[in-house]
Formats: sequence, C-alpha cells, structure tokens
Amino acid sequence: MSEYFEHDNDGISIGLIEKKFHTMAEPPDELILASGARLGPITVAYETMGTLNADKSNVILIAHALSGDSHVAGYYSIADPKPGWWDIMVGPGKGIDTNKYYVICSNVLGGCMGTTGPSSTNPATGRPYGLDFPMVTIGDMVKVQKALLDYLGINKLLAVVGGSIGGMQVIEWTINYPEMVTAAIMLATTTRHSALAIAFNEIGRQAIMSDPHFNKGDYYSGPKPDLGLALARMVGHVTYLSDEAMRSKFGRRLQDRDNLAFDFEANFQVESYLRYQGSKFVQRFDANSFLYITKAADYFDVGCQHGNNSEVDAFAGVTAKILAISFTSDWLYPTYQSRDMVKAMKKNGLDVSFCEIEAKCGHDAFLLPNERQSTLISRFLKRVSEEEHHAL
Amino acid sequence: MSEYFEHDNDGISIGLIEKKFHTMAEPPDELILASGARLGPITVAYETMGTLNADKSNVILIAHALSGDSHVAGYYSIADPKPGWWDIMVGPGKGIDTNKYYVICSNVLGGCMGTTGPSSTNPATGRPYGLDFPMVTIGDMVKVQKALLDYLGINKLLAVVGGSIGGMQVIEWTINYPEMVTAAIMLATTTRHSALAIAFNEIGRQAIMSDPHFNKGDYYSGPKPDLGLALARMVGHVTYLSDEAMRSKFGRRLQDRDNLAFDFEANFQVESYLRYQGSKFVQRFDANSFLYITKAADYFDVGCQHGNNSEVDAFAGVTAKILAISFTSDWLYPTYQSRDMVKAMKKNGLDVSFCEIEAKCGHDAFLLPNERQSTLISRFLKRVSEEEHHAL
Repeated sequence: MSEYFEHDNDGISIGLIEKKFHTMAEPPDELILASGARLGPITVAYETMGTLNADKSNVILIAHALSGDSHVAGYYSIADPKPGWWDIMVGPGKGIDTNKYYVICSNVLGGCMGTTGPSSTNPATGRPYGLDFPMVTIGDMVKVQKALLDYLGINKLLAVVGGSIGGMQVIEWTINYPEMVTAAIMLATTTRHSALAIAFNEIGRQAIMSDPHFNKGDYYSGPKPDLGLALARMVGHVTYLSDEAMRSKFGRRLQDRDNLAFDFEANFQVESYLRYQGSKFVQRFDANSFLYITKAADYFDVGCQHGNNSEVDAFAGVTAKILAISFTSDWLYPTYQSRDMVKAMKKNGLDVSFCEIEAKCGHDAFLLPNERQSTLISRFLKRVSEEEHHAL
Repeated sequence: MSEYFEHDNDGISIGLIEKKFHTMAEPPDELILASGARLGPITVAYETMGTLNADKSNVILIAHALSGDSHVAGYYSIADPKPGWWDIMVGPGKGIDTNKYYVICSNVLGGCMGTTGPSSTNPATGRPYGLDFPMVTIGDMVKVQKALLDYLGINKLLAVVGGSIGGMQVIEWTINYPEMVTAAIMLATTTRHSALAIAFNEIGRQAIMSDPHFNKGDYYSGPKPDLGLALARMVGHVTYLSDEAMRSKFGRRLQDRDNLAFDFEANFQVESYLRYQGSKFVQRFDANSFLYITKAADYFDVGCQHGNNSEVDAFAGVTAKILAISFTSDWLYPTYQSRDMVKAMKKNGLDVSFCEIEAKCGHDAFLLPNERQSTLISRFLKRVSEEEHHAL
C-alpha cells in the first residue's frame, strides 16, 4: 500500500476516501421494512473512492459482509495502521480499479459502523434501540442502499459487488432493481443458508443471549455481553477457515513449543488465536448487530421470497450480467450452492459466468489476495463496461 | 428392540446387563498419571454383557466416546425408555454378538457416569474435585481400563473396539498393551486432532468457562454452568452431523410452517433442535467432565507421544490385527486422517483392514444403524476369533 500513498500522498487522502454520514430521510418518510415495521430516520454511513464520470456510468456499489463496514479500502491517513477490509481488491490499478470506477460502499442497515442499527438512538425513547430495533432483511438493507443512490443522484450501477452476506445483497439487487444493475458480481455466497450455516449462526446468537450482561439487549449503559460476542466470533472464525487452512496456519503447534501444559489455558496456538480474535472483535462490534445481521442472513431465501419457492422464477426478471465465484474449500457456502444458483439463472437465459476457484483458505478466500479472483473481476468489469459503452 | 426382550424376557434383564461399580485401588496404590500427578482411589463403573467363556478368550472391551458411559447396550428393565448408547451394534445376534462374546464397557476416567472424575469427592477435602482434578490423558483412561481387567482376572482381549474418542483409546491399547490385544477396531477416529477439531473443543470449553456459574469449576453446591455446557453441546452436535445430514434432517423448515417470526426465538427447526439437545445434555452431563475429556482428546497425539514424532515408529510394537473404518461425510475426523494412520500401520507390516463407508450422517455415523459397518465388524471378529482358536 505504500505506492498507494506515494501515488496520492498530498496530505488529503481524505479526499480519496470520502467518508460521509448521511441522514437518509426524516419522518414521516420512514422506511417500511419487510416485516411491516416502520423505521426512521435512517442514517447511512458510506464512503466513496475514485471519480464519478460525467455520464455517471462508472459506479460500482460494494456490499460488505457480516463484520465489514463502509471503509472498503485505503487508509484514512498515513498513520492509519490498517486499510479498509477489501484493500486487496479495491484501489488504483487493482481488481476493482478506482482509476476507472467510482466505488461506493455503505454500512448495512442494522450494523454498528455508522448506519442505523440496534445501537442507534431510538427517537421514540431517546435511548439505544436494543432489541426494540425491528428485524431487518437483506432486502431492507438493499432498500437503504437504493435510497442512498437516489440521494447521490445515481440511477444506474455498472456493477454491484459483494461476498458472503454482501453477495446476498448483490443477488437481491439484481432481483429488486433490475433496471439499475448492469452487472453483478457475487462471491462465496448462497441464495439461502443451509441448516449448517443457520446452526452456526444460532450458536453465536445463543452465546450472546446467554451472556448475563446481555440483559435482553439493553446493555449500552453497562457492561456488554463481551464473552458471548467473543464466543460467537470464535465460532464464526472457524467456519470462515478450512480444515486445510487451519492445518497449515496452526496445525497442532503449542504455545509452549515443547510441553503440554496440562491445564485449561490456551495450550495450542489455534486456541490462543481464537481467544485473540474473539477479544479483538468485541472492541469494534456490537453484539445486537451480530444478532440482527446473522438473522437477516438466515432469513434470506431467494426462491421462497421472490419466486414462490422456485429460484428459477425468482430470477425471471433479472437482466444483469452475472459473475459468480465460489471457492473449493468454502464449506460454509459450498460450491454446490453457487452451482444451483447459476443453473437457475441460466434457465432464465441470463449472461452468467461462473468460476470455482481452487483455494485452501475456506470461506474467507474472497477477502484474501488471489490473482485469479482479481483477474476474473477486472476482466468481467472491463467487458461489461465496454459493452455498455457500445450499447450507448 | 422388542425381540430382544422377547428373547430374554425372564424378568432378569439385569442379569444380562451386569452393572458394577468397582473401587479399583486404595491409597497408596494410586494411579500415577501422564502429567506426573497422582490420583486415587479410583472407582470404575463398568457393565458386562454376554458370558465369559472357560478360557476367557471371548472378551471384547468397548471404549466409549465423549458423552457415552458404561451402559453400552440393552435396557436395564422393560420400563427403561432408552437402551444403551450402542445398542444398534451390541447384543444377541448383532454386529458384536453377545451370544458369542463377553463385552465389557467402562466409563472413562474423568467422566461423570460412575468412574472417578472432577465431580467425584476429593478425599483430601471431602468435596468434589472440580478443577483440582488432575488433567488426564487418553493413556490414563486406558491405564484404568487395564486395571479393571486385572481386577476381573482378564489378561487377553479378543478385541478392543471404539469410535471417536473411544477409537483413540483403542489405538492407545494397541500401543501400550500389545501382548493383551488380539484385535482392534477403531471407528471414525484419528491419531491426533486437527486444528479444526481442537478449535471446536476450545469453543466448547470457553463457553463453559465463560458461564458465570462456572465459578472456576467449583459449582457443585450451587447453580451449574448449564448455559455454557448447553452451548458446548450445540457446537459438538453440529460437528457430529454433516451438511447433507442437516439438510435432509432440517433443511430450512420453520417451526411455524408458513411464516418467518421476525424475532430471536427458534424460528428454524434446526435452531429448536440444537436448543433442545443443549438443554437435554446438561441434565446428564457434568461441565467439568466435558473440559477434561475434550482436553484429553486434544492432547492425544500418537506420533508425538509414542513415536518421537513418527506415527510409523509409534506403531512399531503393535501386534494386533486392525480394522479401521471411516465415514465419507465425517468432517471432524475426515478419512484422510484414517488413511494416514493405516499407512503408518502398514509400514510396520501390520494386518490392517481399512474401509471408508459411504454415509451421509457425518461423524455420528458409527453410532447409527449401518448394515455395512455391522457386517464388517462381525466378519472381522469372526475371522480373528477363528484364527485365534487355530493358533491355540
């Protein structure tokens, strides 16, 4: 990333990564959610990278996964220790090239990184919503993104891109706003969670709700359910990795290289890693947001919600060109699920490219450097961009 | 199982399942554990089925897994709602035929079903051991089983049989007491836990130790860490099943068939199932035993502990005939681990039969009815039994 700053190191990297908190609507212009509940006003945190071209034809919307946020890539300043969550993919000259494209990424509805969620103030009480926050769906998240685009005066997306729960939002975009979406890239995702995926999410939720500090979600003025959230994160982390990734990353290596400690401390490096990941996560994430976002993901079911139980029917109105990518070692959203989705799309005659990438690192593969993934994405974007220009 | 009682329904089914609690040794004849700690006196709960023949050549020792006990099969009485944990395999005319073989099964050291464990009274304090119970290893468990056989006057096993953590005990038997073991059957097991398996165990342990009722393991006179233990069990249950098993068992079926509830109750059947399994488990199992037995399993490492980091060397002194079985959908102890074990055995010229059984139900497959598994085991036992008689 040092070249990145050399390239643009004029002291206003903030200009490169434009961070804005946007109040989307005032009551009574509140959002009607899929559940029927009303929610408003809604604040949306978003960031942009690159330059919007004159005909606004170079916009790429990126949707983040469970623990992501609007800070998709780049550093806020040279002192910033870490870049955004998808810095390996987004930036000048990268797979999603911000020299060419205008990238928008917003924090999801229900999140805790600037967009309205359970930790936001409930205007009815002046206190954080907690569990009074209404249940939201992937469709609700996308509706908020659509409102953000309206606010920005953008009515066409060259592409919408996302992995995992972000990929669900991409799928939802293609179905709900086909006229707005030229192309869609969905990575390591699924049209609906398996029982296995629901089970792991439920264990995480139970861990949080079993924490005595959870207090029915009303913990913002006292101690937080950190132990429960840390456990939930530990479970998540294991599902994001693969057997093989964990073997090469940790194997059976001990903290104390030569000896079994014969106690319940973290003897193995993998134990220590998980404890560290859990404790780090609680510093930046809200337990209630974990509940709401995982539940939205569990509820997501394309065939059921859009096709009267038929995925083929669900995709009937889609016009976007599709690039779908899965990863061999992803056991949370295995390739067979992507294949089923792609088949349903192809039955509708859609322009779909599908690739299963050989990768050892499990579900998290889409977040990690991968030449093949970057190339597939950049070529696909180039193609759809050129075809779009020809068509105009 | 009704035929079982018809066959033997003389009102003394208790004679069929002889349950004995045996105090193994009195101080100073205490056991010296692998850690160097001393433990004693030790009580061993065991049950036997079948009849010991005159030359004591028909003894089969069965080792149970994490949550099993000495009650391997059969009913204690006709009123008993459930049989022992491996009733599908053990009994008259079954895979392990109690008309032919004399079966012994004892609760493991560190357990909570009659054999000395952390919930037992510490003679030094008159109170339950709790975390003052010394760490035990798979080798220590086997040492206690050996002492039980000495007590029973049995110095030769036709076979030792077990799955999962029980399979680890089988492996340990073949290495530690080669002169006593004619044959060994190890099912769905591994010579050492992968990082993935350790990770899931560690999450379970963290769930228990994070429970405010855990009280550093000293909870026997107050509320117990039930929520933590239930969570640990939920994690375990998911790892025992397969993606496919969960799909066919639950899929995305809802508790309320037609509607998403838009709340954090158990909406999906898989959520309800996990909560039920968790709450049921805490009624019969001790949280501290969960900690000790999972840690023993995590520590188990045949190559490291017996072969100076070489599994081939570890099996150098083994003489038992081996039957190893793995299951295609077992992702906790995948087939590649059994294959590695079998290779190391074969390099020592051992008589090893290995079979990977096509099964959809994951790690738990060895506990479920499976014609192929039963046939493999009964034929193997028949063969080794006949060869043994020839040799005499």
